[in-house]
Amino acid sequence: MKIGVVGLGLIGGSLALALRETHDLTGYDTDERARAAAKADGIRIVTRIDDLVPADAVVVATPISAIVPALEQLAARSNGAVLLDTGSLKRTVADYAARAPAGTRIVGGHPMAGTTSAGFSAADPGLFRGRTFLLVPTARSDDAAMSVAGTIARDVGASVTVCSADVHDRAMARLVAGPLAAAAALAVAGAQAEPLLGAAGPGFRDSTRLADTPADLATELLFGSGTDAAAAIGSIIEGLTQLRDAVERGDRDYARSFLQAARSVRSELS
Amino acid sequence: MKIGVVGLGLIGGSLALALRETHDLTGYDTDERARAAAKADGIRIVTRIDDLVPADAVVVATPISAIVPALEQLAARSNGAVLLDTGSLKRTVADYAARAPAGTRIVGGHPMAGTTSAGFSAADPGLFRGRTFLLVPTARSDDAAMSVAGTIARDVGASVTVCSADVHDRAMARLVAGPLAAAAALAVAGAQAEPLLGAAGPGFRDSTRLADTPADLATELLFGSGTDAAAAIGSIIEGLTQLRDAVERGDRDYARSFLQAARSVRSELS
Repeated sequence: MKIGVVGLGLIGGSLALALRETHDLTGYDTDERARAAAKADGIRIVTRIDDLVPADAVVVATPISAIVPALEQLAARSNGAVLLDTGSLKRTVADYAARAPAGTRIVGGHPMAGTTSAGFSAADPGLFRGRTFLLVPTARSDDAAMSVAGTIARDVGASVTVCSADVHDRAMARLVAGPLAAAAALAVAGAQAEPLLGAAGPGFRDSTRLADTPADLATELLFGSGTDAAAAIGSIIEGLTQLRDAVERGDRDYARSFLQAARSVRSELS
Repeated sequence: MKIGVVGLGLIGGSLALALRETHDLTGYDTDERARAAAKADGIRIVTRIDDLVPADAVVVATPISAIVPALEQLAARSNGAVLLDTGSLKRTVADYAARAPAGTRIVGGHPMAGTTSAGFSAADPGLFRGRTFLLVPTARSDDAAMSVAGTIARDVGASVTVCSADVHDRAMARLVAGPLAAAAALAVAGAQAEPLLGAAGPGFRDSTRLADTPADLATELLFGSGTDAAAAIGSIIEGLTQLRDAVERGDRDYARSFLQAARSVRSELS
């Protein structure tokens, strides 16, 4: 297929590196340095987003706030190309699709494979291997568009799960925004471990790793779907309050059942 | 040195495997299967704890609740041997040392190198390499005893930090009990991500890894120094509440400074 990629950061760069092996791939980024880095790695580059079409598909892998503007610009001349975004929030894309020009084909996508690194220099064609690539049909998705999006997801080594934008955004608040907030709260509370903070073992390090998320991305993840994120953080506060109360009243049985419930959730992760 | 190890689980087994390379090492465990597994791996085994003395040092690496009973039994006939425990709470050891027989030599120890695996089968002589081994002097520690404990810590590849039992237990509540509680609360809240729980990426997996801690150990970590643990959990709740309130009132600036404070704590971890 002829595929364009808009946004050559960690996600877009990794997709470009993986897809160019089996597809006719072209990349674009608003940032000249990102374009130069991708070009140096052998990716064909254009200097205007419009030059990515005509194509079979254009993947929009920009920061969240730039996704809908990029889709709007592409929609005007997409001529049947499947527009697939990769942002971690899907309601805004679904909302835009509902008002996009007739004939536009838009599929929401979300590869579950972030790291706390950013930029093309961190891109890795193996980033998506064995991960889940969530696909969200919109009012502008037809069977052929879903099939093209599915091919792209599988060609980067991911497996596909289809869900609605509502289900997606609520779940991501639990799996992404909540853990991010907890990592930040743990790190800030951990500062009180001084002078022994530097002795922290792998448990504290892993637990707080998400606090390294770049501030712009972290803020978008918390505020992009704020109601869901606030609810997810509320659930974590609730669980912690139950555990603290159990510790304060010496109720080992309660704490043990809570910990066992937590372990059984972990065991459901493949 | 002639060194005994009581308790051949993950920590004791790893210490025994590391120390036998340069010391005259003997192991003991109350559980016959643990003794058999260690013996099969070439560790000299005795079938009674009393047979570990006389020795230069005996390391007590039992579950937390068995540490003071083991120290009591060894103290009666230790004859100058340095008794070094490896539990993650140090006030109880310091309290026991204060009432231990005159002439007993007791040092509190805590290697910062747990995993969620357990038992001799998970033991690894490289477990402590590059980690911090905290040493806590007690009323029964003299310079020679601290020196023996320091040699043991360095001989397993760790670096030594000395602190008081109070500083240790308060810090560990922040670095161990708090993260454990947060991991459990995150996992339980994560269950509400169904049907997408299985799509969880590496962020959620790392953030909840401590929820795999065996239930007995996890309960001891939360209740062994309950006041400290409750305070640490309270600090995490406080941070999460600040973040949730910021999300609810749309205050990106506040959230961003909180996230930046969290990142700067992370950057202090070596």
